[in-house]
Amino acid sequence: MFHHVKELQFNARVSKPDVRFAKLLLEQFGGPNGELKAAMQYFVQAFGCRKPHPDKYDMLMDIATEEFSHLEIVGATIQMLLTGVNGELKNAADESDLTKLLDGKAAKENYIHDAMINPHFFLVSGGTPTLTDSVGNPWNAGYIMGMGDLTVDMRTNIAAESTAKMVYENLMKFTDDVYVKESLRYLMTREVAHFQMFQAALDTIQPNFPPGILQSDPKFSNKYFNMSKGEKFSGPWNDGKSPLMGEDWQYIENPHQHVLDTNGLLKEQQEGTYRTEKSVQKVNRELSAERKNEIDDANSSKNGVMQWSTYNNKEDKEKPKKKKIKKSA
Amino acid sequence: MFHHVKELQFNARVSKPDVRFAKLLLEQFGGPNGELKAAMQYFVQAFGCRKPHPDKYDMLMDIATEEFSHLEIVGATIQMLLTGVNGELKNAADESDLTKLLDGKAAKENYIHDAMINPHFFLVSGGTPTLTDSVGNPWNAGYIMGMGDLTVDMRTNIAAESTAKMVYENLMKFTDDVYVKESLRYLMTREVAHFQMFQAALDTIQPNFPPGILQSDPKFSNKYFNMSKGEKFSGPWNDGKSPLMGEDWQYIENPHQHVLDTNGLLKEQQEGTYRTEKSVQKVNRELSAERKNEIDDANSSKNGVMQWSTYNNKEDKEKPKKKKIKKSA
Amino acid sequence: MFHHVKELQFNARVSKPDVRFAKLLLEQFGGPNGELKAAMQYFVQAFGCRKPHPDKYDMLMDIATEEFSHLEIVGATIQMLLTGVNGELKNAADESDLTKLLDGKAAKENYIHDAMINPHFFLVSGGTPTLTDSVGNPWNAGYIMGMGDLTVDMRTNIAAESTAKMVYENLMKFTDDVYVKESLRYLMTREVAHFQMFQAALDTIQPNFPPGILQSDPKFSNKYFNMSKGEKFSGPWNDGKSPLMGEDWQYIENPHQHVLDTNGLLKEQQEGTYRTEKSVQKVNRELSAERKNEIDDANSSKNGVMQWSTYNNKEDKEKPKKKKIKKSA
Amino acid sequence: MFHHVKELQFNARVSKPDVRFAKLLLEQFGGPNGELKAAMQYFVQAFGCRKPHPDKYDMLMDIATEEFSHLEIVGATIQMLLTGVNGELKNAADESDLTKLLDGKAAKENYIHDAMINPHFFLVSGGTPTLTDSVGNPWNAGYIMGMGDLTVDMRTNIAAESTAKMVYENLMKFTDDVYVKESLRYLMTREVAHFQMFQAALDTIQPNFPPGILQSDPKFSNKYFNMSKGEKFSGPWNDGKSPLMGEDWQYIENPHQHVLDTNGLLKEQQEGTYRTEKSVQKVNRELSAERKNEIDDANSSKNGVMQWSTYNNKEDKEKPKKKKIKKSA
Amino acid sequence: MFHHVKELQFNARVSKPDVRFAKLLLEQFGGPNGELKAAMQYFVQAFGCRKPHPDKYDMLMDIATEEFSHLEIVGATIQMLLTGVNGELKNAADESDLTKLLDGKAAKENYIHDAMINPHFFLVSGGTPTLTDSVGNPWNAGYIMGMGDLTVDMRTNIAAESTAKMVYENLMKFTDDVYVKESLRYLMTREVAHFQMFQAALDTIQPNFPPGILQSDPKFSNKYFNMSKGEKFSGPWNDGKSPLMGEDWQYIENPHQHVLDTNGLLKEQQEGTYRTEKSVQKVNRELSAERKNEIDDANSSKNGVMQWSTYNNKEDKEKPKKKKIKKSA
Amino acid sequence: MFHHVKELQFNARVSKPDVRFAKLLLEQFGGPNGELKAAMQYFVQAFGCRKPHPDKYDMLMDIATEEFSHLEIVGATIQMLLTGVNGELKNAADESDLTKLLDGKAAKENYIHDAMINPHFFLVSGGTPTLTDSVGNPWNAGYIMGMGDLTVDMRTNIAAESTAKMVYENLMKFTDDVYVKESLRYLMTREVAHFQMFQAALDTIQPNFPPGILQSDPKFSNKYFNMSKGEKFSGPWNDGKSPLMGEDWQYIENPHQHVLDTNGLLKEQQEGTYRTEKSVQKVNRELSAERKNEIDDANSSKNGVMQWSTYNNKEDKEKPKKKKIKKSA
Repeated sequence: MFHHVKELQFNARVSKPDVRFAKLLLEQFGGPNGELKAAMQYFVQAFGCRKPHPDKYDMLMDIATEEFSHLEIVGATIQMLLTGVNGELKNAADESDLTKLLDGKAAKENYIHDAMINPHFFLVSGGTPTLTDSVGNPWNAGYIMGMGDLTVDMRTNIAAESTAKMVYENLMKFTDDVYVKESLRYLMTREVAHFQMFQAALDTIQPNFPPGILQSDPKFSNKYFNMSKGEKFSGPWNDGKSPLMGEDWQYIENPHQHVLDTNGLLKEQQEGTYRTEKSVQKVNRELSAERKNEIDDANSSKNGVMQWSTYNNKEDKEKPKKKKIKKSA
Repeated sequence: MFHHVKELQFNARVSKPDVRFAKLLLEQFGGPNGELKAAMQYFVQAFGCRKPHPDKYDMLMDIATEEFSHLEIVGATIQMLLTGVNGELKNAADESDLTKLLDGKAAKENYIHDAMINPHFFLVSGGTPTLTDSVGNPWNAGYIMGMGDLTVDMRTNIAAESTAKMVYENLMKFTDDVYVKESLRYLMTREVAHFQMFQAALDTIQPNFPPGILQSDPKFSNKYFNMSKGEKFSGPWNDGKSPLMGEDWQYIENPHQHVLDTNGLLKEQQEGTYRTEKSVQKVNRELSAERKNEIDDANSSKNGVMQWSTYNNKEDKEKPKKKKIKKSA
Repeated sequence: MFHHVKELQFNARVSKPDVRFAKLLLEQFGGPNGELKAAMQYFVQAFGCRKPHPDKYDMLMDIATEEFSHLEIVGATIQMLLTGVNGELKNAADESDLTKLLDGKAAKENYIHDAMINPHFFLVSGGTPTLTDSVGNPWNAGYIMGMGDLTVDMRTNIAAESTAKMVYENLMKFTDDVYVKESLRYLMTREVAHFQMFQAALDTIQPNFPPGILQSDPKFSNKYFNMSKGEKFSGPWNDGKSPLMGEDWQYIENPHQHVLDTNGLLKEQQEGTYRTEKSVQKVNRELSAERKNEIDDANSSKNGVMQWSTYNNKEDKEKPKKKKIKKSA
Repeated sequence: MFHHVKELQFNARVSKPDVRFAKLLLEQFGGPNGELKAAMQYFVQAFGCRKPHPDKYDMLMDIATEEFSHLEIVGATIQMLLTGVNGELKNAADESDLTKLLDGKAAKENYIHDAMINPHFFLVSGGTPTLTDSVGNPWNAGYIMGMGDLTVDMRTNIAAESTAKMVYENLMKFTDDVYVKESLRYLMTREVAHFQMFQAALDTIQPNFPPGILQSDPKFSNKYFNMSKGEKFSGPWNDGKSPLMGEDWQYIENPHQHVLDTNGLLKEQQEGTYRTEKSVQKVNRELSAERKNEIDDANSSKNGVMQWSTYNNKEDKEKPKKKKIKKSA
Repeated sequence: MFHHVKELQFNARVSKPDVRFAKLLLEQFGGPNGELKAAMQYFVQAFGCRKPHPDKYDMLMDIATEEFSHLEIVGATIQMLLTGVNGELKNAADESDLTKLLDGKAAKENYIHDAMINPHFFLVSGGTPTLTDSVGNPWNAGYIMGMGDLTVDMRTNIAAESTAKMVYENLMKFTDDVYVKESLRYLMTREVAHFQMFQAALDTIQPNFPPGILQSDPKFSNKYFNMSKGEKFSGPWNDGKSPLMGEDWQYIENPHQHVLDTNGLLKEQQEGTYRTEKSVQKVNRELSAERKNEIDDANSSKNGVMQWSTYNNKEDKEKPKKKKIKKSA
Repeated sequence: MFHHVKELQFNARVSKPDVRFAKLLLEQFGGPNGELKAAMQYFVQAFGCRKPHPDKYDMLMDIATEEFSHLEIVGATIQMLLTGVNGELKNAADESDLTKLLDGKAAKENYIHDAMINPHFFLVSGGTPTLTDSVGNPWNAGYIMGMGDLTVDMRTNIAAESTAKMVYENLMKFTDDVYVKESLRYLMTREVAHFQMFQAALDTIQPNFPPGILQSDPKFSNKYFNMSKGEKFSGPWNDGKSPLMGEDWQYIENPHQHVLDTNGLLKEQQEGTYRTEKSVQKVNRELSAERKNEIDDANSSKNGVMQWSTYNNKEDKEKPKKKKIKKSA
């Protein structure tokens, strides 16, 4: 259950209207890396954690709720930047006043020019933010990701925080309003904070590589295919040891010939790895059982009714104390 | 600023998993008439009201926040209906177990059949609700409407509540789970409550017809064009007086001939109306000035800084009293 | 079956080309509140009315067809505003003329500037309107609504007419062309007329509140949850009687505590209402039976063949007389 | 201006409801190759032809209007196939009847199964066609094409008719209803008829190859790059003469080496062609001038007002005679 | 399997940055008629041809791969046109430098102005092309067409090449950069070349009209409905013989009356055609059998395993010779 | 420039047709985590690296090209799984055979049932994969991410590989075909390999945290807001040191009160951090200058022409040697 308090989380201020920056700032209101995307992504991911991972649920809902609060900050800033637009639209009667003075013409020309920047502010939102990115594409739920596996979802969230941080960094180049910059810097900083929260949560899950459960096939996990001929480079991504598994990279100089030689890789041999098919299968079975049990235990229903919340209305429920709990192994 | 409390607004319960109804219920999670649409529509509309119409802002934020809380109820219900999906997916190791027993085959067949119902639950969300409608279309911001004018937006919201109510009514046909029906009935009822809230708010704004400010042209506002030949009907929409303006409907039997006769309606005469071009222009000017002033007064900035919230940290701020205020004329 | 006559319903005129206003006017050609949306919404809704509600079918098809005719007016206006664009594009040979004169450079600069306003007019439509809104989002069928229930659909249509009216009102601010304004005012006025037609139709259906059939739960229909803390306001939406059902609004000051106190609203009591669960169920049963019968009677097939139209080719069919019929109770 | 007559262009009939075929048939109601796409594509293309090519305008509007009429046939057929859905939804009161009989359970199971086929028919459209394709994607204007050049647009339309014909051919495999097949065959046949109309129109424009105005560069127009190694084939697309220009295909066996040899094709030589850069430029200039003049002449405004239609209300206007006119050279 | 070589197929060059033309050029990078659309359309169509039509598979993959190479040329050109954008964005520290000099202000104003042209280049792509059209709509797979029938798909491809050619022709009007024009002309020319390749391939399939297999109904294939009253025109599309079937066009002067007279066309008679229902059915049966056999023969599996490629690693496999093969009848 | 060889990178095989698994597998053909998304994401990101980061360009193009090759494997597998669909569609003539035998009816019923699984395979693609996800949503470019900053893009790519890996893991649950599983396991393994390549590349860039350039504000980077009341948990994400910056997490127990106390965080103090505003600004300036120079140096044009590739046609260009180079500091 959500509540709202009328004060913004951050005291957003604006020195003067600026329809152009309002347009740019839409990117973080209704864009693919914006606050709504973050809020909805963590909110939706949280459902699956409620029972088996209540600590992660708590964290996801804390951050999701903060992101909704950031969405409100961004929206409020855009609204202040658009001050005057709606009042001017209400000045509707002049449509019937067919005689125009010269001043009126010049003012009108400016007004039309502003409308070209983002017609939606003037025609359909009445000077209110629209849930689009900066070029006008409506927000859509294709932006949000969640696979129901925390080793994947935490990484997805780290990427989301990285891109959001970058957009704020870029946005700061396009305004001189010190008040607006102040808010942008706050919002940018919180993305960095969230990044680290997700990283810390990921680190509590072991093993967390590879993401998911199934181990990679040792025949193929350390091969590098040189698919792009011309100037070539070596780096730790194709030379030396792979960074998370410590296998030796095998560089396939001529992939086409290699594929022909191995009957389409069916005859591929494993090289440069300590893992065996047998060790892989053992890990698969053990980790699979462990992760399945975590979830099944948490979800076992009682008395033929599943219930999301409990409502024992005690005083200490109202003032919950901070409990230290251990993460599950 | 938003807060979240872990208890749902309504004690949502489920008697057993049901992947089919989970699919249908998505319609109200991520569909065009669903809870997210309502929540975001009112939330976005609220920005423009903050200063000029703080009473409407209060109402819109109250209802928006309740709709976010309903979104959570719907999501929690879907999550409970999908119990077992994610645990089974974690049973990943059997992919390496190539020998299949007969029982396994039958179970697998059922499992595959369930996946056909909604592949997303099984492949990409890990048994968590997805922000789509019941056939899988991602939610998009094209669903939300707001024109920055309360006489329009309240009507848009009434329509939104009507469609949402209808979907809940239809959904109830497809489940026998008494716990689920209990939640659906609660959610359906709240749409009816919100409908009336928006209607009441609309009634406080006078005049509120026509929506917006400009009056209709008396030459064309009471004409009914018979564009669809064949069996014809009369009703109060083309016969008698128009319901909101009280003009006499004029039925144009043969629109093509009429258009030819009037040089493309340029020579159209007004009939059956008490209004004149002069009276129309007078209302336009007066209402335009009044509405513009309302907004301009509210938005006048102080000291070169615009600020969204004030934070005077007094005790009585924490425990606000219910104030009676009058609506503006 | 549709016919087309080459004359526009309204004698649309333009005094000179204006690529900027052409861009803005796209909002009503291919935008979410535009003429195509209206036309398609009423056209699609009409299918379900054909048999059970032939009077509403007649009205919906009359208005849908008029909206298609308005779409044509808007498109024709845009086409005239874009005069010159296509001819200039045909001037393609100058691409091979690598020597540029100074005049050519200045003209080209203007030309490129115009292209920035809306690249689609210059690159992909050849100076013809595109089915997008004013920022270029393609029209999509997510804009149209219809629930197969007239008490819902009429309200949806009223909202559609309200938003469309508002966009025309806003558009008038951005042009000085008296001919264009003349057409805009006509189109705006027709939205007001259609609004009233849908209102009149809605009024003929009794009861029409709540939308659909099922009555609201009297325990929850008159509760107002104060979800948004801070400055609060009372108004007829949370104080006094609810406007359509006449129940007394119950204000829940602290929703979280209330939810804890009522075991997630399961123990909620009804207050301030004259309705009972029993009276609600009675209305549900009766109205349900009545509405079902209306539809089933109309749809009963004859001789194992369903047929949409009849074609008895009589002369009086060609010149149908206006028949007065009663609305069904 | 459009008119509607209540009779369908084709006497569409159905022998019994079939929710599955209704789902499939949506492909031609709101799908990318369906009737709405065709109708809107030709309608939008027509605007640009109104003045410079009134004969093509007449053809496009004739076909567009027929496609709208076909859209109505498809919608009516779907509506008849869905008979019973809406009536059953109106049977809403049984939601309050918590005791279920065994028969009711079985019927409900069937009902739920039907809903899985297409939830939209049951939850959001009330048994009315939806403007989506057969899997539920909303129609969008990205489906329609028009470049403002008839030599391109006629070819686009030929492709549209080809795909639409193919979908009808495929649809016939999925129903045994002879009445439905009868309508499908009619609709399929009309696509073949329209194909030929567009082909005939294209043939009246000379030259019509290449599409548009600018001639291709003779250095590159007859080269075939063998980009896909392995089993190779020759055919008239890479061997012999090119079918429309009669140049000799030049087969580039090893494109990478060729690109290196020619400094990225900058040193490419023309071979196997009779055309020269000079002859190309001459055609470019002449054709460009001709096409530009056609359009400019047609669009020249009179007296500072552009007007779409004329309304001289003479009797012979009402009964226009078929005029033979010549196509412009 | 794909390979990449670092050299572009064409030596794309740019004389100086131009953010405006970069925006326009996006139309061919991520627009509906652009290079990605072409590449993906032919690539996807190719799958179905692999077995039954290996010669068409070869052609489709050759052209698809060339289109990917063109996508790279377009992207590289945009990247060069955007030179400087990313470096300037990296100049992020000046956000902390609150004192601005006058010069800085002017430069910033220009910078902001550039951002208005396409905010995505500055906020989200860091000066790299985005997969959108010129107004910012993301590329989507709705752009690609393929019906699994070569007589349809070749025509669809001809249309795709026509529109792509036209966009390049239009683009050339908006730049003076001779290097950019050089690349555009190359790309435009290749569309003309591909057009002819698809035409040649279509010609090898006989019969190829009507597209698909089923013949049109002789009662309806040569009727022209005059659906659009007013000024009328005759042309080879409604007068004389139909261009591909050689039937005599029948002009229906008054379609409504005609429909009434024929009981909704059920009593329509065939006229002006040499075909009979019997001859049509004969062709249907024969062509259907032939086309089905082609596919079934090709797809017959061997030994219970289907395999896409064979990998007999012989030296001559590496250097395949050009084989002449005949098309199947 | 791309090349294609007809052999697949992996010898994809299928034991028998399976339209249901074909539908599921679409998720990785045209879904948001699929092969096209990966291929296009890396391909587009590569453009910006070409000059300033040629080593990363090489890696991105190698992996992008491999992903295109995987897209081909997935498509080929779907095509084999759909064997028989197209042949049956070509059996079109039986539509004219109105007499049905009993066997035919049963077969037809199965056929219709298959069509319900995914109508697109039967109506619009003719048994060829479609560029959609498993429920039919068309692929769109909103799936791809790239910010023009490698510290962000590498993290985005790691997330992409994680989600893609997870989908393959899930897919394996839904087929028993050992050949299909073999291919799925190969594809899954390659995602794990690519994950490590991107991680290794990220590690070569120092510093790479925070992503982008600007440092976070030390007043806000280590605050944890408890936005979600009820059961609370501590973990390394809100207790102890932040994992990447080593600051002490500060837990804000009551965010609303805290915001009131700090005038909307404007008076927030930094706590638990070693960083100062001054040290932050120093890093900002230095890193900003360094990154800007990297890019500007690489992009400096020569002689007024920018050129993407060089084509010095030497023999050693054809057989490039593997060069060891150092990453830039």
